[in-house]
Amino acid sequence: MSAIITAIGLDADDTLWQNEQFFAMTQDNFADLLRDHTDKGNLMERLLAAERRNLPHYGFGIKGFTLSMVETAIEVTDGNVPSDVIAQILDMGRDMLSHPIELLPQVEETLVSLSADFKLVLITKGDLLDQERKLAQSGLRDHFDGIEIVSDKTPPVYADIFERHGTGADQALMAGNSMASDVLPVLDAGGWAVHIPHALTWAYELATAPENRDRFTTLDKLGALPTYMEKLTGG
Amino acid sequence: MSAIITAIGLDADDTLWQNEQFFAMTQDNFADLLRDHTDKGNLMERLLAAERRNLPHYGFGIKGFTLSMVETAIEVTDGNVPSDVIAQILDMGRDMLSHPIELLPQVEETLVSLSADFKLVLITKGDLLDQERKLAQSGLRDHFDGIEIVSDKTPPVYADIFERHGTGADQALMAGNSMASDVLPVLDAGGWAVHIPHALTWAYELATAPENRDRFTTLDKLGALPTYMEKLTGG
Repeated sequence: MSAIITAIGLDADDTLWQNEQFFAMTQDNFADLLRDHTDKGNLMERLLAAERRNLPHYGFGIKGFTLSMVETAIEVTDGNVPSDVIAQILDMGRDMLSHPIELLPQVEETLVSLSADFKLVLITKGDLLDQERKLAQSGLRDHFDGIEIVSDKTPPVYADIFERHGTGADQALMAGNSMASDVLPVLDAGGWAVHIPHALTWAYELATAPENRDRFTTLDKLGALPTYMEKLTGG
Repeated sequence: MSAIITAIGLDADDTLWQNEQFFAMTQDNFADLLRDHTDKGNLMERLLAAERRNLPHYGFGIKGFTLSMVETAIEVTDGNVPSDVIAQILDMGRDMLSHPIELLPQVEETLVSLSADFKLVLITKGDLLDQERKLAQSGLRDHFDGIEIVSDKTPPVYADIFERHGTGADQALMAGNSMASDVLPVLDAGGWAVHIPHALTWAYELATAPENRDRFTTLDKLGALPTYMEKLTGG
């Protein structure tokens, strides 16, 4: 039986363009800055703990990440962090907010192909201005029927988005690199999901693949999505 | 001649609920923290300069404000700020992100009255999660046909919003406390604007009132808007 799908949601960071590599680079620099106080393993553990603790206040994005680095630096130095280290952390945060956009392979032609048959919606979380900046620099804006920058990717958020763009979540598919944000909540909302793993993924976004879910599959690259959609919809 | 208006945009911070008072309180505490290094006047000047400098990176909102306080603290102490002061600044930022909502007078009944005749859109800038939290806590969500949390309030942003909610900017009116964000750009987009001054307004939002603009007026409180709309639209 062919599925009826009218809308496709696409994640942005590490689905359309590189993102986690800039966090990884920054974390390396952060560990260098504090190497006299702690090793990288412990530092990353404390940083992730701070990020999780601060999520209800800060939400996702680089500004909150920067604030969590400042907090972690104070913590691991027992309150003895020199202020030039704090100043360097602020600089690192600002650098991240202006990093260049590197599109992943085959992104543009894939969007052109998909947009012939489906409403395309970009669905991303993070800092509003930063996500807008990256979209503008990517040159991909015109391929999308809708842009949704959300504070979190939950089942009700997906249900609302696919109600407004398309014909409801049960006739929508979401594709992205995060099992926790792009796959599980869409399935819970009654939709379809495609996981496209990326070599670098933030620990927070890791989750176990769903079992017995006939509306879920994994593809090794975004470029494989048009062929998969054809098969799925019998188009 | 009666105007045709189909949609009303309403600003949130200091139009529907108190906001600037929490910034003012935090700035007092910030000045207290650094009183051994500089007086409040100079500190506020340096802080505003940092906020303006960082706007292209951080955009609007409390997370960026917190980062700018940290930066200013390093600056005014010539790099000698103790890390417990930085920790207290982080705490102050987190406190702001969970301050209680205090509705301004007559807000609820005004929205009820306006929503009988117009599409209502809440249009606000700031941190995505924080603005969502405040809206949820305000209990006002159901009075609005649309919620638009934007990175900046510019003429194209208003044109796009009133295209989607209503019948274009020339048949839309925006009401809010900021001359720079709620009045001037809407007039530039061809719409109508009502300025409702608030006793406390961030220096960045101050601007000169428009001259020779027949689509602009000032009201002393939100509660006066329904009567004004009736007069304007001949309803």
